[in-house]
Amino acid sequence: MTLDELVSLALAEDLGPGDLTTEATVPPDLLGTARIVAKQALVVSGVRAARRVFERLGVTWECRAQDGDRLSPGDMLCALSGPLAGVLSAERVALNLLMHLSGVATNTASIVAAAEGQVKVVCTRKTTPLLRSLEREAVLHGGASPHRYGLFDGILIKDNHIAAAGGVGEAIRRARAAAHHLVRIEVEVENLHQLREALSAGAEVILLDNMDDATLAEAVAVAKGRALLEASGNMDAARIGRIKGVGLDFISVGGLIHQARWVDFSLRVDPVVRDAAAPA
Amino acid sequence: MTLDELVSLALAEDLGPGDLTTEATVPPDLLGTARIVAKQALVVSGVRAARRVFERLGVTWECRAQDGDRLSPGDMLCALSGPLAGVLSAERVALNLLMHLSGVATNTASIVAAAEGQVKVVCTRKTTPLLRSLEREAVLHGGASPHRYGLFDGILIKDNHIAAAGGVGEAIRRARAAAHHLVRIEVEVENLHQLREALSAGAEVILLDNMDDATLAEAVAVAKGRALLEASGNMDAARIGRIKGVGLDFISVGGLIHQARWVDFSLRVDPVVRDAAAPA
Amino acid sequence: MTLDELVSLALAEDLGPGDLTTEATVPPDLLGTARIVAKQALVVSGVRAARRVFERLGVTWECRAQDGDRLSPGDMLCALSGPLAGVLSAERVALNLLMHLSGVATNTASIVAAAEGQVKVVCTRKTTPLLRSLEREAVLHGGASPHRYGLFDGILIKDNHIAAAGGVGEAIRRARAAAHHLVRIEVEVENLHQLREALSAGAEVILLDNMDDATLAEAVAVAKGRALLEASGNMDAARIGRIKGVGLDFISVGGLIHQARWVDFSLRVDPVVRDAAAPA
Amino acid sequence: MTLDELVSLALAEDLGPGDLTTEATVPPDLLGTARIVAKQALVVSGVRAARRVFERLGVTWECRAQDGDRLSPGDMLCALSGPLAGVLSAERVALNLLMHLSGVATNTASIVAAAEGQVKVVCTRKTTPLLRSLEREAVLHGGASPHRYGLFDGILIKDNHIAAAGGVGEAIRRARAAAHHLVRIEVEVENLHQLREALSAGAEVILLDNMDDATLAEAVAVAKGRALLEASGNMDAARIGRIKGVGLDFISVGGLIHQARWVDFSLRVDPVVRDAAAPA
Amino acid sequence: MTLDELVSLALAEDLGPGDLTTEATVPPDLLGTARIVAKQALVVSGVRAARRVFERLGVTWECRAQDGDRLSPGDMLCALSGPLAGVLSAERVALNLLMHLSGVATNTASIVAAAEGQVKVVCTRKTTPLLRSLEREAVLHGGASPHRYGLFDGILIKDNHIAAAGGVGEAIRRARAAAHHLVRIEVEVENLHQLREALSAGAEVILLDNMDDATLAEAVAVAKGRALLEASGNMDAARIGRIKGVGLDFISVGGLIHQARWVDFSLRVDPVVRDAAAPA
Amino acid sequence: MTLDELVSLALAEDLGPGDLTTEATVPPDLLGTARIVAKQALVVSGVRAARRVFERLGVTWECRAQDGDRLSPGDMLCALSGPLAGVLSAERVALNLLMHLSGVATNTASIVAAAEGQVKVVCTRKTTPLLRSLEREAVLHGGASPHRYGLFDGILIKDNHIAAAGGVGEAIRRARAAAHHLVRIEVEVENLHQLREALSAGAEVILLDNMDDATLAEAVAVAKGRALLEASGNMDAARIGRIKGVGLDFISVGGLIHQARWVDFSLRVDPVVRDAAAPA
Repeated sequence: MTLDELVSLALAEDLGPGDLTTEATVPPDLLGTARIVAKQALVVSGVRAARRVFERLGVTWECRAQDGDRLSPGDMLCALSGPLAGVLSAERVALNLLMHLSGVATNTASIVAAAEGQVKVVCTRKTTPLLRSLEREAVLHGGASPHRYGLFDGILIKDNHIAAAGGVGEAIRRARAAAHHLVRIEVEVENLHQLREALSAGAEVILLDNMDDATLAEAVAVAKGRALLEASGNMDAARIGRIKGVGLDFISVGGLIHQARWVDFSLRVDPVVRDAAAPA
Repeated sequence: MTLDELVSLALAEDLGPGDLTTEATVPPDLLGTARIVAKQALVVSGVRAARRVFERLGVTWECRAQDGDRLSPGDMLCALSGPLAGVLSAERVALNLLMHLSGVATNTASIVAAAEGQVKVVCTRKTTPLLRSLEREAVLHGGASPHRYGLFDGILIKDNHIAAAGGVGEAIRRARAAAHHLVRIEVEVENLHQLREALSAGAEVILLDNMDDATLAEAVAVAKGRALLEASGNMDAARIGRIKGVGLDFISVGGLIHQARWVDFSLRVDPVVRDAAAPA
Repeated sequence: MTLDELVSLALAEDLGPGDLTTEATVPPDLLGTARIVAKQALVVSGVRAARRVFERLGVTWECRAQDGDRLSPGDMLCALSGPLAGVLSAERVALNLLMHLSGVATNTASIVAAAEGQVKVVCTRKTTPLLRSLEREAVLHGGASPHRYGLFDGILIKDNHIAAAGGVGEAIRRARAAAHHLVRIEVEVENLHQLREALSAGAEVILLDNMDDATLAEAVAVAKGRALLEASGNMDAARIGRIKGVGLDFISVGGLIHQARWVDFSLRVDPVVRDAAAPA
Repeated sequence: MTLDELVSLALAEDLGPGDLTTEATVPPDLLGTARIVAKQALVVSGVRAARRVFERLGVTWECRAQDGDRLSPGDMLCALSGPLAGVLSAERVALNLLMHLSGVATNTASIVAAAEGQVKVVCTRKTTPLLRSLEREAVLHGGASPHRYGLFDGILIKDNHIAAAGGVGEAIRRARAAAHHLVRIEVEVENLHQLREALSAGAEVILLDNMDDATLAEAVAVAKGRALLEASGNMDAARIGRIKGVGLDFISVGGLIHQARWVDFSLRVDPVVRDAAAPA
Repeated sequence: MTLDELVSLALAEDLGPGDLTTEATVPPDLLGTARIVAKQALVVSGVRAARRVFERLGVTWECRAQDGDRLSPGDMLCALSGPLAGVLSAERVALNLLMHLSGVATNTASIVAAAEGQVKVVCTRKTTPLLRSLEREAVLHGGASPHRYGLFDGILIKDNHIAAAGGVGEAIRRARAAAHHLVRIEVEVENLHQLREALSAGAEVILLDNMDDATLAEAVAVAKGRALLEASGNMDAARIGRIKGVGLDFISVGGLIHQARWVDFSLRVDPVVRDAAAPA
Repeated sequence: MTLDELVSLALAEDLGPGDLTTEATVPPDLLGTARIVAKQALVVSGVRAARRVFERLGVTWECRAQDGDRLSPGDMLCALSGPLAGVLSAERVALNLLMHLSGVATNTASIVAAAEGQVKVVCTRKTTPLLRSLEREAVLHGGASPHRYGLFDGILIKDNHIAAAGGVGEAIRRARAAAHHLVRIEVEVENLHQLREALSAGAEVILLDNMDDATLAEAVAVAKGRALLEASGNMDAARIGRIKGVGLDFISVGGLIHQARWVDFSLRVDPVVRDAAAPA
């Protein structure tokens, strides 16, 4: 789904056969201007999508801030101008995108901060269905790094794959035979025994799932740099602060997205100057 | 967008040209069974969508709980059976739907509880783009009531519409002339002066926006039943608990959806019994 | 379906893999001008759609009349200019839209005239599949008023719903509980006994179906303004003329659309001035 | 557009996000039966499409009559059975298709009858946009014959094509060079002079447009079987009755479709037998 | 499928969620220029499609050669200018179209040359699925002529149709009754006996399938111009050279398309002049 | 695009508004059986797609051979049974898929054979637009290995990327920073100097483009296993035979696909046994 298709679907969802209120009350040729303003401290994301929503209805978006920028309460995100009817009909869809995506970016930034640059914080495939592309961008705007996009651009062998293949070595062998040579193979392990097996079998990246802090440290010692190490499982800012220096390469955090809440923007329409002579 | 189209898009998003890991490691004819289990107390939503995801990949979903049911940690939502590859490839998309939508239902239930049945809690158009239909259902599963679906099935006249039309009376007159007779007209007001104007102009429903508790009570006294009254603006469980008995008809709460966080389910695959003779 | 999608489908239907005749005989760079002219007295509808058809093929439409205008034989609807090949390839699709929709508007105008402004004439859901949006606009251009768009933006409880719910009171109660508060509830009745039941049960709008003139008058007396009254069933201009003053709020007329016939427009291409030097 | 796509669009148009009334009042597991009955003498068309509409909502259609059959008032078209909610939600869309298409078939039959088998009555490209496929089938059900489907499966050279090509001979030559050899070339003429030119230039089919009865007879004499002859222009049953024996091969009649009005069917739901024990 | 839809699908196929390499390494505002150059003697086809691919990514295509032109090694097809990132991301899709389609045109030209204008060489329905429209254009660019586009714009009765209908005469009668009058009827025959039958039955075009050279000559003598004659079956340049003068109207050659191989173009990016001050 | 969507588009392309010949001549309820038989030695590919084409038209496909199997002339691929009309209408589309894809598999097998298992032969992104997924499968059926699917699932840095980034080291650094950690980075080099640079910069895979045999051998010596080595540029069976033992990891060959020609299958319908009593 391209961004254009997403915007079409989002507008169709809200507008359906038409905006009854605006079509009835606002003359189609009445022009207006408006601003979108941050109502709290936040990190911006969703500009590209929200802008496209307004443009579909003939409204021009003049940028005052970009994706990834930090805004304080009262800071202006953009100036809008065009048909007032278009501003009003697009408002909700555009703000829904902005408030959700900037919520993800803002939440991400607060979690990434805890890592103090000592370990990469990466996202997961726990994303809102149909919004993965935009939410992954939001995570980047918030300072985190990407993980594989989906099931098609990376190999991550979990316990069920290993059981089905008949062992970790056989699973890696099959994956290597089937996959192209620009894809790395990651194996998920839950304890140090499995970690040693995965290393022996040639895993290039190892996902340390749901280990406690001490075990994570021990895992780093065991791996001795023979594979990239990623840790996951109930990671939040506090825990990342504790384990950031232990020697992991990546910490993956589903909560960057699924524990985020919307941040608040408001769209303020400037007083409409109507030509007294207009028939309205 | 129908549910089938949504499921197609969601699967395409995650699977793209294929599930590299599963296709490489899991024989396509290997059968398996699994369960989805609640990991926390929650209200279920998303069964219809998640089920469809699995069915697309040939996996059968046997219901143990329905949308709207309350589950405790460890309670089973469903039993799955079919090709193990299908279970593994569908898992993430299905869980993303379930965890997001049950999160909305669970959050809604906790807010609705505060109203103690004295006032209807209703949702708003602040929904995740492309998921409005499912999120509205989740809100119902959590015990709240619907508001208009979009801009097309109800009239809600706000300050900008009034300014464009040249007054609240003129805005209502235009709306009534343009709309069909099964749609009611709601007018948003911010103070008691506007409330009196809207009542005089014949508004059938009035949205009391961002008023404090005392003003809400006074508004009820002013309206004397001449119009349905809806209150909105930063509503949460605590405030709803305070104002539930004041005489409002509806309290609309965007946060039913946009302040919800995912709840936790886990999918547990049963040990695979592989026929020793199978070539795998 | 947006207007753009409808125009794409309509052009694909007629052009398929290409306009064999025009591609073979008309040089692609040959410019031309043309006019669309009314061949009978009519009310215009379909300008927006027909114009889009020509624009898709690179032809400019200069308006001489708008939707809702009344034209006499020989009056010009628009001037066209652009590639002659585009004019010829778009002609049939554009005229099909114009002739059908202006037929609906013209038919509507003649029926609405009979009401002499004493009662609102409204359309129904008896529309040509896939053209509801355009046909509803045509009805407005002809002077009638809208009814609900579809099954999703209004409640109309008929005998089968009542039977399924177990009574008119129970049906209304369920509908009110399930519907949002900007949707009104209409109940269809076939005699005065049912009318009294519906009024008692709190119906906000009542559809008087297939009653004779005398019974309609009696129904108005019974209702005494406690609900809006809509009459339907084999309504045409003659009958509307008879009952317009009886006190009904609305008369709904499926025949606005389904008894309409196309009106006649012709597209006249101006003589082509070809540069003698052109290789054609 | 396939029939499945058309049915999807038609249902989406009417149902949008849901059938408010039926969902609120009719239990989803309540079964029902119904019949569709002709309310006037008519020729059936649209069975395939209407049936698909019901099937989408889980309702079974048992045929009692086929496309092309003639029904008298009270005759049964089909028996329906399945979820009552499905019957009610599909009713309008299905009947809209049936009443429109059977209207075309019925109108066609009355016009074709006038030809008494002495000349083929054929349809034109004057069809309702997006419904051409179904309307062409309806014309066949009414006893007429097809013309080319669109601009892509036949060549029909009109005056503007001739002017652009620089003469009828050059236009035919270009068309023959560009078209494949399974497509015949038809040329439209308006008088006997043009007819002679077209015959000389090798036209295989000639469209005699808007000629009076006497000129049509003379044209037949001039052509002497050297080309197939088709007449068009304001053809109705009366005129076809007059000219049927003059020696034409085809008479094309746009009015088969665009002068047709809907015929009347009614859907009658049988009394619902509800299990007294059912919770409804 | 329109050309725009084809280009969208082709780009989606290659780009998916994004061009990882280019997005990472090439600044989005860096401009560049490039040329596409023929690396062998070839006939051009695919300009319209390839151009559209580049335009989608903001790159301007300045024509130096047109579809149907013959290029020598080193000849320039076009000059490209725009964002360097767009040039690089579009390159493969555009070249894939150009190299495939110009391969078809080049192969066609070499086969058509063998006919020395004495018989028309026509394509068949043996085309790459989803690319028929472009491949048919490529065949025309190479100098051959079209056959019917698909199953919908011509009648070609083969042995199985004859068997199902119960004889060639009955098959032709049915086809003529069902088809519109701008479609010609072709019958496939495999020997002279069948040829005589088909001629007697009134076939307008006859496909002589898999006959040897002598039989083809005899068939021409038998037909004596009573029908158009098309020969098919393992036709290549050598055989066409032998039978070109035998009196056939058409030789159909599936190998125009399915025996073609890609020709070679290269896209050469000019050295990028980067502003030393740019942050890149 | 899913396989179902591809099949829908392919059928729409050939069938358009209908199969004129079959609909006219073959009774819809006439059943038939048929076989698809190889007419030459070949490797099978396309079974899944071709089968789906027949199934869409109600025809059952009974497998006698699978994708990847080698067939000799006369070997049977499948037995078909169902409505004869469906067999005939689906035939061309299904065979076009089979003959094209089996052509790719057969061509691939002959090239892979030259490698004698000493080096992996991999495909490239030189695929027919819209058919990449099926052609990649065909390449696997022929015994070769996959490369990255598109621009989104692997990093391949070429000279223009390096120039834009300002050096190979900087390009790799940017790519590593932007890409997720399951994607490997490949760098294209054209001589040994560039090879040494790429190795120093940390490239994980190196594409040796257009080097002669001696230089390839030297490159292997230079790399000493520090990176995976892929060679490309005008590779065919002969050259692969020469360099297979030189120590490369992969040889990528666009010609697996773009130099393939269709192989030949024929569909043979069994004589139709028609019930003498059938009305046909």
